[in-house]
Amino acid sequence: MKFTDGPRRVVIEGIAPHIEGGRHPVRRIVNDEVAVSAAIYADGHDLLAARLLYRHKTERRWRFTPMQAEGNDVWSGAFRVDKIGLWSFTIQGWIDHFETWASDLKKRLGAQASETDRGNPDAESSARDLPLAFRSGAILLHEASLRARGADARRFTEAAKLLNQLADENRSIYEYPLSGELHRSLADYPDLRHATQCEIEFPVAVDRELACFSSWYEIFPRSASPVPGQHGTFTDVERQLPEIASMGFDVLYLPPIHPIGRAFRKGPNNSVNAGSAAPGSPWAIGDKEVFPCETLGAKQNGDCGGHKSIHPQLGTFADFDHLVTTAKNYKVEIALDIAFQCSPDHPWVTEHPNWFMIRPDGSIQYAENPPKKYQDIYPLNFESPDWRRLWGELYSIFEFWIEHGVRVFRVDNPHTKALPFWEWCLGKLNSKYPEVIFLAEAFTRPHVMYGLAKRGFTQSYTYFTWRNSKAELISYLEEITRPPVSEFFRPNFWPNTPDILHKTLQEGGRSAFAQRVILAATLSSNYGIYGPAYELAENAPAKPAPGKAESEEYLNSEKYEIRQRDRNAPGSLVPLITALNRIRRENSALHANSSLHFHSIDNPNLLCYSKSTPGSENTVLVAVNLDAFNEQTGWTDLDLSQIGISPGEAFVVEDLLSEQSYTWRDRRNYIALRPGVQPAHIFRIMR
Amino acid sequence: MKFTDGPRRVVIEGIAPHIEGGRHPVRRIVNDEVAVSAAIYADGHDLLAARLLYRHKTERRWRFTPMQAEGNDVWSGAFRVDKIGLWSFTIQGWIDHFETWASDLKKRLGAQASETDRGNPDAESSARDLPLAFRSGAILLHEASLRARGADARRFTEAAKLLNQLADENRSIYEYPLSGELHRSLADYPDLRHATQCEIEFPVAVDRELACFSSWYEIFPRSASPVPGQHGTFTDVERQLPEIASMGFDVLYLPPIHPIGRAFRKGPNNSVNAGSAAPGSPWAIGDKEVFPCETLGAKQNGDCGGHKSIHPQLGTFADFDHLVTTAKNYKVEIALDIAFQCSPDHPWVTEHPNWFMIRPDGSIQYAENPPKKYQDIYPLNFESPDWRRLWGELYSIFEFWIEHGVRVFRVDNPHTKALPFWEWCLGKLNSKYPEVIFLAEAFTRPHVMYGLAKRGFTQSYTYFTWRNSKAELISYLEEITRPPVSEFFRPNFWPNTPDILHKTLQEGGRSAFAQRVILAATLSSNYGIYGPAYELAENAPAKPAPGKAESEEYLNSEKYEIRQRDRNAPGSLVPLITALNRIRRENSALHANSSLHFHSIDNPNLLCYSKSTPGSENTVLVAVNLDAFNEQTGWTDLDLSQIGISPGEAFVVEDLLSEQSYTWRDRRNYIALRPGVQPAHIFRIMR
Repeated sequence: MKFTDGPRRVVIEGIAPHIEGGRHPVRRIVNDEVAVSAAIYADGHDLLAARLLYRHKTERRWRFTPMQAEGNDVWSGAFRVDKIGLWSFTIQGWIDHFETWASDLKKRLGAQASETDRGNPDAESSARDLPLAFRSGAILLHEASLRARGADARRFTEAAKLLNQLADENRSIYEYPLSGELHRSLADYPDLRHATQCEIEFPVAVDRELACFSSWYEIFPRSASPVPGQHGTFTDVERQLPEIASMGFDVLYLPPIHPIGRAFRKGPNNSVNAGSAAPGSPWAIGDKEVFPCETLGAKQNGDCGGHKSIHPQLGTFADFDHLVTTAKNYKVEIALDIAFQCSPDHPWVTEHPNWFMIRPDGSIQYAENPPKKYQDIYPLNFESPDWRRLWGELYSIFEFWIEHGVRVFRVDNPHTKALPFWEWCLGKLNSKYPEVIFLAEAFTRPHVMYGLAKRGFTQSYTYFTWRNSKAELISYLEEITRPPVSEFFRPNFWPNTPDILHKTLQEGGRSAFAQRVILAATLSSNYGIYGPAYELAENAPAKPAPGKAESEEYLNSEKYEIRQRDRNAPGSLVPLITALNRIRRENSALHANSSLHFHSIDNPNLLCYSKSTPGSENTVLVAVNLDAFNEQTGWTDLDLSQIGISPGEAFVVEDLLSEQSYTWRDRRNYIALRPGVQPAHIFRIMR
Repeated sequence: MKFTDGPRRVVIEGIAPHIEGGRHPVRRIVNDEVAVSAAIYADGHDLLAARLLYRHKTERRWRFTPMQAEGNDVWSGAFRVDKIGLWSFTIQGWIDHFETWASDLKKRLGAQASETDRGNPDAESSARDLPLAFRSGAILLHEASLRARGADARRFTEAAKLLNQLADENRSIYEYPLSGELHRSLADYPDLRHATQCEIEFPVAVDRELACFSSWYEIFPRSASPVPGQHGTFTDVERQLPEIASMGFDVLYLPPIHPIGRAFRKGPNNSVNAGSAAPGSPWAIGDKEVFPCETLGAKQNGDCGGHKSIHPQLGTFADFDHLVTTAKNYKVEIALDIAFQCSPDHPWVTEHPNWFMIRPDGSIQYAENPPKKYQDIYPLNFESPDWRRLWGELYSIFEFWIEHGVRVFRVDNPHTKALPFWEWCLGKLNSKYPEVIFLAEAFTRPHVMYGLAKRGFTQSYTYFTWRNSKAELISYLEEITRPPVSEFFRPNFWPNTPDILHKTLQEGGRSAFAQRVILAATLSSNYGIYGPAYELAENAPAKPAPGKAESEEYLNSEKYEIRQRDRNAPGSLVPLITALNRIRRENSALHANSSLHFHSIDNPNLLCYSKSTPGSENTVLVAVNLDAFNEQTGWTDLDLSQIGISPGEAFVVEDLLSEQSYTWRDRRNYIALRPGVQPAHIFRIMR
C-alpha cells in the first residue's frame, strides 16, 4: 500500500481464477466466457461499483464490463475472449457516491411517506433535510456532467438543475425525481478519482479449439509401406490419410523423423549394439556423418543430421511439406515429436560438447539410471555455462518446423528438461505462434506434471493408463477436471503408447481395448491411441527386464523394428473407434471436461458418468463395464439435475453405439453390459 | 522469470502459510514454531536440498534451517520466532549434486555386489565405471573445499584425494568410502550458484503472549465511585483493582475517557438533547470550550478537549498515569477505547472542518443511517483532500496514549474507517511498538472483519454473541480456529458488551449468563465481559425502537447514565468467573485455540469439546448445557485420539469447577447438567 493511495477506500482481494497469484496464466479456448469473481468491499455502508478490465496482449487500452454484487461482498463478472493469444484482466472498484446518495434519498423519501413514522422525530427531521439532500445530488450530477460529453453531459446538467429547483420549492412531500435511464447513463461516467485498481494483471492464455477437443492417432511412418519389409516413407503415410481421416482423427502424430544415430544403436526388443542393419530407435536422434548438409534442404542452416534434418529413408523436405499440406485437406494436422536428446552421432556432440555433461575422462555422459545405462542417448545439460546458446538453439527447432507448417508438437520427456527453460521457450512460442499446440509427455510426479502445464504446455499426457478401477478413475478425473487443476492443465488420455502396454490390456485383450478406448474418448475431450497396434488389440508384452516380474513394453516393439500391420484385419476395432470419433464430433457435450459428473451405480465394475453443454442442449450419459471378462449389471442412481431431467420424469435415451433407444424413468434404471458384445452405453438424452 | 536465471532448475511454489501471497502477515506468538511447507521440485531425478531463510526485521542477514522432503515433492521446515515484531521468511532450493552423485554411486556399488546382477551386462559395465565415478566425486569434493574453511576444507580435500586414489587402484570390488559425518559437514557448504530463491519474502507478525491469551474486563470509570450518585474517577477505579485482579482478569478496558460533547448530548435511554445535566455518552468525543488547553497536561500539544484530553471529572493525567502504573503492579493492563469520531464540540470541527463531510449549506454532516440520525456524532471523511494530515493526527493519538503507558487499545467501529488507513497506521504502530495490542470492535460483514484483521489488528470481536445453538457454535468455531482464518484472525469472545444484551441472556437470565461466560472463556483463549452488569446477570432490555419488536440494548444503559452496582451482591457470578479465570491460567490447553475439537454427544442441547497442549501434557474437556431452563443428559462419543486416551482405556476426569473426579472409560460416557446447579463440566484429563 502506497501512502499516496490514501483515499482509495475500496479493497479488492480473493480474485479467481488465478494460478499462483497471477504468476502463470489460466488457460481458456477462443470464445470462452472468462468468469471472474473477487471480494470487493470498503469501510462503512456506502454503495460500491466495480468493473472488470480486460485486454488482448495486442491491445493497449483496457476494455471493461461491469461486475455484479452476489452478496456477502463477493462480486462477479465475465468477458469473452474472442481471439487466441495472451489476455489479461484486472479489477477496478470504487465508492459509488451517486448511487449511495440516491439510496439514502429513497430512504428519506420513504420515511417522509410512511404512516408508521408519523411522530417519529428522526423521520420528521429527515424529511426536513430533503432540500439539502437534493442539493447534494445536484453537486454530484454537476460533477458527472464535467466527466461526460454531449447529450449525456447536458442531461446531467438538466437533472442537477431540476434537483436545485426542487430544493428551492421546499415542499412537504416529494417523489423520487430521477429516471432509471438517467441512473444507467451515469454508470457510464463513474467518478474514478479514488478508484482502487488491483495491482496484478492476471494472465489468460487463449488457445484454439483443437487444444481442448482433439483425437490423436500415432503411427510410425517407417512402418507405413504396403510392401512387406520395405522402409515406409512420408508418401506411404500420405496414402493412409483417407483411412485415418475416415476413422475421425484430427491429429496424426509421428515419432521423431530425424536421422537416427549409429553408435550403440538399439535392435529388436531393445537389444544393444544392433549395428546399422537395424533401423534403430527414432528417439536416438542425430547422425552428422551419413547425412551431410548438402543433401538436405536449404533451410537447414548448419544443423547437419540433427533436429532440423529428416531421416533420408522417410523422404525429403518436399515430401514432408506435401504430407503436411495434404493432411490439412483431410482436416488432419501433422504433429511432430520433439525429443531434446541426442545420439552420440548428433552434430552438437562435436560442435557444442559443453551442451552435455562431460565426464572426468573427457567423454560425454550418456543417459543413466544406475545401474541402467542408455549409451545411445546423450541428455542435454541445462546447467551448461553455454545455456543461453543451448536455449536459443532448442527454441529454433520449434520455429524451424513451424515454418514447415507444423502447428502441433508432442514433446518427449519434458520433465527431464529444466522448467525455467520451458517457461521461457513456450512463453516465447505461445506469444509468437498462439495457434501452436504442445502436448507434454510428462509421465512424472504430480507437481512436476502440473508445473509443466503451468509453464505453457497446451495439453498433457496423464496417469489415465494406470487408473483402471472405478475408484481410481473417479478420484483422478475429479482431480483433473475441476479447479484448480482444470484452470491450467488439459488432459489427453492415451490407453496405449509405444512405451506403455498396461497389464489391463495385456490380460483383458480385445474386450479391455474396447473398454479403455471408450473411457478415453468420452472421459477426456482430448484422447489418442497408438495404432494400428490398438485397433488390432495387440497385447503381447515384452520379456520382463532382469529381476522384474512384468513389463509394460510391447513384444517386438515398433520402437526398434519396422512393424507392418493391417488395421482392418478381422476383429479390428476400427469400426468402434470410427463410431467413437463420430459420436465425439456430433455431441458437443464431449468437447470439454468441466461438466463431467459421475453418477452412482450399485456395481463396482460399472462406471456411469455424464457430460453436458452449458445449457444442457446436448447431454451424453455413459456407462462402461470395467470388467473385461464378465457381464456386469446394476441399477443407476442418477443425479437428475446433472442431465436436465426432473424427478419422476420419463425420458428417452438413445445409445449412440448400438443405435437402440430406451425409455428410462427417474433416478433408478437397469443396465447390463457384456464384454465383447456391448462394452458400454453411450446415451444421448433425447429432449 | 528472468532470462538470466536459466540454470536455476529448482521450482518453489505453494508456500504455506501465507495471506494473499505475502500481501499481509500471518500472526504468531513469541516463541512459536513457525511451520513452513512448499512444493519444491526440479526436472529429472537429481536430489534436491532446500532451506528456510528467516529473519527478524531488525536483522540484515538471513538465518537458515534445512527443510525436509515429506514425499510427493512437498518439503517442510520450521523456525522459532524468539522475539516480538515483524519477521519474514523465504525458501531457497538447489540441486544437491554431491548427494545425487553419492546416491548414484551407492546404486553402482549395489549393482557390483549383487549376486542377482551377475550376468546382467548393464550392472557389470556399471561396475567398470566405478573409477570414473570416484573421480567425479573428487571434483565435487574439491569444489566444496573451495567453499569451506579451515578443518572442513582440509577434510574435503583429503576425501577428494582418497577418491582419486581409489580410482587409481581400479579394484573389482569397492565399499562406499565416505563417512556420514563427511556428508553432514558437506551439507554446511552447499553449492548455491544455481540455487532458486523464492521471490517473495513472507511476513510473520509476532505478538506477545497477551495477544493470544487474555481475559478482559470492561467498566465505566464514571460508575466506579462508592459514593451514591457521585461521578467516578480514575482513583475510584484504582480502588477496585485488587478485586478485579483477584477475579483473574488481566486487561481492564475503559470506554473513552475524553471530554464529552454538549451539543445534542444524549440522556438516559438514548433520549435526545439531554443537556449538560446528563453525563452524556463517552463516545461523543470532544469539548473544546469547557476544557481549555491550559487546564490540561503539558503533553497535550494543542488538542484541547479532544482525543488527547481527559474528561476532568475522571481526574488528571497524573491520576491516569498512576492508575496505569498501579494496574501493572496487579498484573492488569489498562486498555483504552479509541473511537475516531467527534462530537460537534470537538476542536477539529473548527480547526479542521475539511476532515469531515461538508453539506451544501456549509454545515458538517452528522452520522446518519437514513431515516436515523446521530446528531451528536460527526464521522470523519477518509476521502478528505487533507487526508494526509488527518491520518497523521489519528496515528498520533495512539502514540500519545502509548507515551502514557497504554499498551492495549480497543478500537471502536474500525470498519467505518478506511482500510488503507488501518494498514498504514497499524503497520507503523506495530513496527514501532510491537508490544501494543489492538482489539477491533469489528461487528461487520465477514470479509470486512477479516480484512481489518489482515491489516494489523491483533484481536477482533466476533459473532460469538449471536452464535447460540450447538450447530451455530460448532460451525463458527471451526471457521475461525482453523486455517486460513486462524492464520491472521484472533477471536475475542464477549458474551455481553454495553451495546449488546442478547436475547439468550435476556430470556435465560442467570443460568444463561453462567453458560455463556463458560463458553466464552473455554472456547476462545481471548474473552471478556462488560461488568458488573455481567456478574449481576443484568438482563432487562431497553424499550424497542419504534417499529421494532425487540432491542439488544440495556435498559437504563450505562452508555448514557452513571450506574453504580455491587458486583458482590447475592447471586453474583463473581465466584464462577473467578474460578474460570483460575482454570484458564492453570491449564495451558486453554491458552490457544488451534487444538479445539468438538466431540459428538447425543443431545442437541449439550456441547462437548476439548483443547490440548501440543504434547497433550494438558488436556481440558468441556461439556456445556446450552439450555438455560432444563436439565440435559447425554452420552458422549469421544474422539479418544484428541484427548490422548487409547481405545478401551479407563481414565480419570477431574471437574475443575466442582472439584469432583470421575472414572470414565472409552468413548461413551454419561453426562447430566442442570442449569443453575451445574451448568457445565470443565474436566482435566488426569494422566
